[in-house]
Amino acid sequence: MKDKVLAFLKEHNDYISGEEISIKLGVTRASIWKNINKLKEEGYQIESATKRGYRLIDTPDVITESEISSIINIHILGKKIHYYDKVDSTNETAKLLARKGAEEGTLVIADRQLMGKGRLGKTWDSPSGTGIWMSLILRPKITPGQASQLTLLAGLNMCEAIGRVTGLDSQIKWPNDIVVNGKKACGILTEMSAELDGVNYIILGIGVNVNMKSFGEDLPHATSLALESGKTYLRRYIVKEFLQLFETDYMRYKDEKSIVVFLERYKKNCITLNHDIKIIASDGEYIAYAKDIAADGSLIVIDDNKQERSVFSGEVSVRGIYDYI
Amino acid sequence: MKDKVLAFLKEHNDYISGEEISIKLGVTRASIWKNINKLKEEGYQIESATKRGYRLIDTPDVITESEISSIINIHILGKKIHYYDKVDSTNETAKLLARKGAEEGTLVIADRQLMGKGRLGKTWDSPSGTGIWMSLILRPKITPGQASQLTLLAGLNMCEAIGRVTGLDSQIKWPNDIVVNGKKACGILTEMSAELDGVNYIILGIGVNVNMKSFGEDLPHATSLALESGKTYLRRYIVKEFLQLFETDYMRYKDEKSIVVFLERYKKNCITLNHDIKIIASDGEYIAYAKDIAADGSLIVIDDNKQERSVFSGEVSVRGIYDYI
Repeated sequence: MKDKVLAFLKEHNDYISGEEISIKLGVTRASIWKNINKLKEEGYQIESATKRGYRLIDTPDVITESEISSIINIHILGKKIHYYDKVDSTNETAKLLARKGAEEGTLVIADRQLMGKGRLGKTWDSPSGTGIWMSLILRPKITPGQASQLTLLAGLNMCEAIGRVTGLDSQIKWPNDIVVNGKKACGILTEMSAELDGVNYIILGIGVNVNMKSFGEDLPHATSLALESGKTYLRRYIVKEFLQLFETDYMRYKDEKSIVVFLERYKKNCITLNHDIKIIASDGEYIAYAKDIAADGSLIVIDDNKQERSVFSGEVSVRGIYDYI
Repeated sequence: MKDKVLAFLKEHNDYISGEEISIKLGVTRASIWKNINKLKEEGYQIESATKRGYRLIDTPDVITESEISSIINIHILGKKIHYYDKVDSTNETAKLLARKGAEEGTLVIADRQLMGKGRLGKTWDSPSGTGIWMSLILRPKITPGQASQLTLLAGLNMCEAIGRVTGLDSQIKWPNDIVVNGKKACGILTEMSAELDGVNYIILGIGVNVNMKSFGEDLPHATSLALESGKTYLRRYIVKEFLQLFETDYMRYKDEKSIVVFLERYKKNCITLNHDIKIIASDGEYIAYAKDIAADGSLIVIDDNKQERSVFSGEVSVRGIYDYI
């Protein structure tokens, strides 16, 4: 009912009487009044004037299903949205839904994560009201080995989405951190359930630091879009921009089963290329020069012995950013 | 208590009195008598003679935890065994256990599967008393793309185990069907949960047709070890042989992160090589000549245009076996 009242207020740019709403929705005026108050508590600015009724003045920075649904116009991604005020981890919630058969494109998004996860078993700080913590359920017909390509594509699209909404010069640290002014503003954690013959589902978990005013001393390389630009952003417009870009490119990827057509765009935005990098592999660390991205998404590097190597995964530090100076 | 009574009988090659067992185990003679009867119901042949007591004559073809544990002498695989008289699918049960943190090497084995699964969404007939339906939980530090290598290795070891126990000339149809006299006697279904940076767990599901006397008309390409040899086998000795071979090779694989050292053995046993094959890929069917197995486990084929191609997954028919003549 709250969502219906909100939709009603949005449809009318001017005042609308409680009586008219109550008749149209078929509920009592007391119920209308109760739901208006709930919306106010959530941050919606609603003016009320005697005899004229209610008027929506401003919508807060919420990322509820109704707010996101009302601004996106795409067919698969986000068609079904599960919003939570708080959740342990959107990836874990998405996994549970995927196991129960949730369809491709289902989006899990939360205002706060209590146990947000990063890559390589790290935690991810996910406070309330300031970031985008979301996980997309995808069911492409690809093999487990191809899944890393999807993650590059999602990183590219989020990099572009951030650039479009904020005007900031965002870059991709291979494979898929988004970096602004040398600090990390976004991370992607991709998980999957698969057979060797094909992926069952992929969970694309994305965390974006949007409006944080500061980070703890334990996170010296983290930043937010607000810290870098001096402005704050409505999170849902970044979600919208990403979903729209990714839906187009993801559909094309599913057809072509290749990221070749996206590689030039990815490389243009990739801060890792043409830098010295430190690679922490399972068999030890080494320094190399990042030369190119291969068609399969791996990083092609040249090591100290002028040997070309392919890097498929693991931790890669880029000279000049984060702690590797 | 039943397992303790059984262990006691096994320790003594001769008669042992109910009184002695009841004193040693600290339970009543009535309880001993009850458990002896349970064992008899399971097929254990136990002779009882007045004043002399009980004597174990023969152990049936059971694959319970205690029977398997009593014959294997390895350190990781099968250290923890979950036996079920029946289960929907050992892979599904193993996945549940893995999610709850079951350790590497945990074995799930069932006398019967109600909803056995094969590759590519097929079902797998798993009747009671005649086959080996088991799933191993593995937690190697590899990437999702490397998991296919493990499956080749398991296929090789099961091929060798069957050969050792039965003397039959078993062969591998790439990637991991085991074929005897041109018919399928064993299949492997590998499933995984992974992040891009590494596998969380791999479920290696193995089904072996051991003692079936016939197959339905809907399974014209299936066979059992008994059908091909005219003998029946105690299933636990095939389980034992496989676990022992695989533990050694799996530990080596985890060290080397490569199947190169196993490739010659694999190729020697692979019926696919040097045959014309039909490949059903996502973009259509084509005929090619199977030339080699690459270090990453993929099949190297030469197509009609003399072009070399790599086949990573999908359905491959080999001319001369199954329905591809």
